[in-house]
Amino acid sequence: MKKSTVKTTKRDDMIDITTEVQKYILETGIQEGIALVYCPHTTAGITINENADPDVKKDILRRLDELFPWNHTLDMHMEGNTAAHLKSSTVGSSQQILIHKGSLVLGRWQGVYFCEFDGPRDRQYFIKLIADKD
Amino acid sequence: MKKSTVKTTKRDDMIDITTEVQKYILETGIQEGIALVYCPHTTAGITINENADPDVKKDILRRLDELFPWNHTLDMHMEGNTAAHLKSSTVGSSQQILIHKGSLVLGRWQGVYFCEFDGPRDRQYFIKLIADKD
Amino acid sequence: MKKSTVKTTKRDDMIDITTEVQKYILETGIQEGIALVYCPHTTAGITINENADPDVKKDILRRLDELFPWNHTLDMHMEGNTAAHLKSSTVGSSQQILIHKGSLVLGRWQGVYFCEFDGPRDRQYFIKLIADKD
Repeated sequence: MKKSTVKTTKRDDMIDITTEVQKYILETGIQEGIALVYCPHTTAGITINENADPDVKKDILRRLDELFPWNHTLDMHMEGNTAAHLKSSTVGSSQQILIHKGSLVLGRWQGVYFCEFDGPRDRQYFIKLIADKD
Repeated sequence: MKKSTVKTTKRDDMIDITTEVQKYILETGIQEGIALVYCPHTTAGITINENADPDVKKDILRRLDELFPWNHTLDMHMEGNTAAHLKSSTVGSSQQILIHKGSLVLGRWQGVYFCEFDGPRDRQYFIKLIADKD
Repeated sequence: MKKSTVKTTKRDDMIDITTEVQKYILETGIQEGIALVYCPHTTAGITINENADPDVKKDILRRLDELFPWNHTLDMHMEGNTAAHLKSSTVGSSQQILIHKGSLVLGRWQGVYFCEFDGPRDRQYFIKLIADKD
């Protein structure tokens, strides 16, 4: 497994980590299998979405914020970041991607994103590769 | 891995692909392991939900549409399908299911669904099986 | 694979099952790999979120309920639990966690939760471990 770090610069952010995952696959030499990308934070997550028009990221983060507004009079959690916990469980803590012929099998417009929902912070994520048995 | 195709007929649709996944398990002869079902599109996804009453699918798609209305004055993405991208990240790009004794281990009411959020289109999905090591 | 049971006591509930997953890893002796925690019910799910302040769970369940109110005049599903089906597809039917040196690799504040959305009931979940090939 590999630990990677990412520095987020806004409260809500999506950072494309596709290249990092692909690089690790090349380092290990794995040809066929699955990559698991995992976020160890409860106010962040991993998602797969469009890598072409940057406005998609902006729309996704803004609409998630409308769904889970930061301030909510009924929230009890003292830290005040309940909305970030909900966004985390909505997009999910991890994603899996197929590996074929030593490469990630992504759709033409797909990228793997680290999602920050309570930044800016120094964050971590883990990449784990499961190779097919021979 | 196996590439499968699916033809969707509406903008929002849930197509039961459970039989396709089970068929591939039988073809490979894998007895114990995990099946990964992966969607390579950013305006579609994979989910697991009820396979009995078809009204559940209708309710799910209608309520997701209420949550993420197609038209939104603040959306910036020129293609106009921001809502579909949000639904994709909400249900997720993939699902994993256990394989035991050569069969998918699903709950009594569970089916595996390809979720179309920007159809109708010709779509693809991938099935990857990871066998236990002996 | 291991089948575990959980008794839920409320309509909406999050039950920390981290210890059960860790216990099973110890029983099998697996040192490196992945744990898949799977929910076979269509009105429940699995998520990973904060294990420290119990108010986070209360806020998550209450906000999900605001998003997917139990009663909705347009719902067609006769059982009347459409909201639970939507919550299930939102948090997801399963989660994956890395195993390293015989232990779950969770973030400092992360726990694995069985999410009940239509309780109280007697529920099941499955744990499946995939060991690295040697």
